[in-house]
Amino acid sequence: MEKRPHIDRHYEDELRELQHKVLEMGGLVEKQVADAIRALVERDPEAARLIIERDKMVNRMDVEIDDLCLRLLALHQPAARDLRLITTALKITTDLERAGDMAENISERAIELSEEPQLKPFIDIPRMADIALSMLRNSLDAFVREDVDLALRVCAEDDTIDALTDQVFRELISFMMEDPRSISRAMRTSFVAKYLERIADHATNIAEMVIFMVKGKSIRHLDRVPPSV
Amino acid sequence: MEKRPHIDRHYEDELRELQHKVLEMGGLVEKQVADAIRALVERDPEAARLIIERDKMVNRMDVEIDDLCLRLLALHQPAARDLRLITTALKITTDLERAGDMAENISERAIELSEEPQLKPFIDIPRMADIALSMLRNSLDAFVREDVDLALRVCAEDDTIDALTDQVFRELISFMMEDPRSISRAMRTSFVAKYLERIADHATNIAEMVIFMVKGKSIRHLDRVPPSV
Repeated sequence: MEKRPHIDRHYEDELRELQHKVLEMGGLVEKQVADAIRALVERDPEAARLIIERDKMVNRMDVEIDDLCLRLLALHQPAARDLRLITTALKITTDLERAGDMAENISERAIELSEEPQLKPFIDIPRMADIALSMLRNSLDAFVREDVDLALRVCAEDDTIDALTDQVFRELISFMMEDPRSISRAMRTSFVAKYLERIADHATNIAEMVIFMVKGKSIRHLDRVPPSV
Repeated sequence: MEKRPHIDRHYEDELRELQHKVLEMGGLVEKQVADAIRALVERDPEAARLIIERDKMVNRMDVEIDDLCLRLLALHQPAARDLRLITTALKITTDLERAGDMAENISERAIELSEEPQLKPFIDIPRMADIALSMLRNSLDAFVREDVDLALRVCAEDDTIDALTDQVFRELISFMMEDPRSISRAMRTSFVAKYLERIADHATNIAEMVIFMVKGKSIRHLDRVPPSV
């Protein structure tokens, strides 16, 4: 790519495009996770297989956003705030990509569980998914709006997810104790809870990075680098 | 920080320092994981508590390296290869920090398991840990040496870890079936296997990023940006 005179005019647009693409990737990941939970609850292995197939799209967006970040860094030598925005986006994609992998893992367990009799109706798992997904959405909104308060609320929600995970585990253990034939199904279900916990972890990580991006505590000296540098 | 005339002379040194710091952080994470497995096997809750305490050091190194990356990006406007090196380092620290979190999680399970009678001697878990740690070490060596072949070997090893995880799960399920009183201990042990699997995942992710950094397939157009840009 050649440096062309009109590029600087587009710099602000490209930064907005970056934020937009991060939200778009977040939206896709969110849909993947929600669909995976639906496939699990509705015992629909076909839907689960489609989700696994669609993970490629998530990976493609990851590469695209990284590309855009590198282009912005190479062409515009951003400083201070813009630099933090771009490097944060670069790190956020990793979390989103892995949250996408969790949708794939949930789908795999959904396929396996659909081949065995139902252990019990899912109640806590969809609730966990709702919370984890709202955390993910809020962490990305906090990124785009540079909203520290919202990011802090995401971090606080992580405890709710951890408590729910513990509750799911305790219940599954009692199922296993009562009927050893349920053990392998209960283990698979416990993995789904773990995957959701990890999605919440990714959201929390994103939120922490947003706080760092806005407050820039340990990198605040960068703000004093003159714009010419 | 002011821009001073001698800074450019130090640019190469700073890039070497960056690689060195990533290796150093990797070394600390490796030690944390190895110590956590030892605390688990030797049923030593005191050692486990020290590892949890030491996780702060890992987090501090994460922030330090990110700082250095941002400074390098802000002051030197690197292009092409250097830019990829720095942005890869920025992403690698996230993986290392989370691998460090796994050492903390293993230590928590080690403390819990030390309070109950031993389920069985650990055989596969230390083996899994050895493989996961050698993957982590090799992925960082591949980063510093820009060694694609080594990175590819790391990716290939991930299947070994997945197979071992399956084996551990199958064995634990049979334990649980035989004796329901072992269920809660077996679950905790299965989590340790999951944590090790995730360390191997982090190593694989690092290796994939190294391949991307060296080959730069989807970002190779950056190589054509003139050095003045």
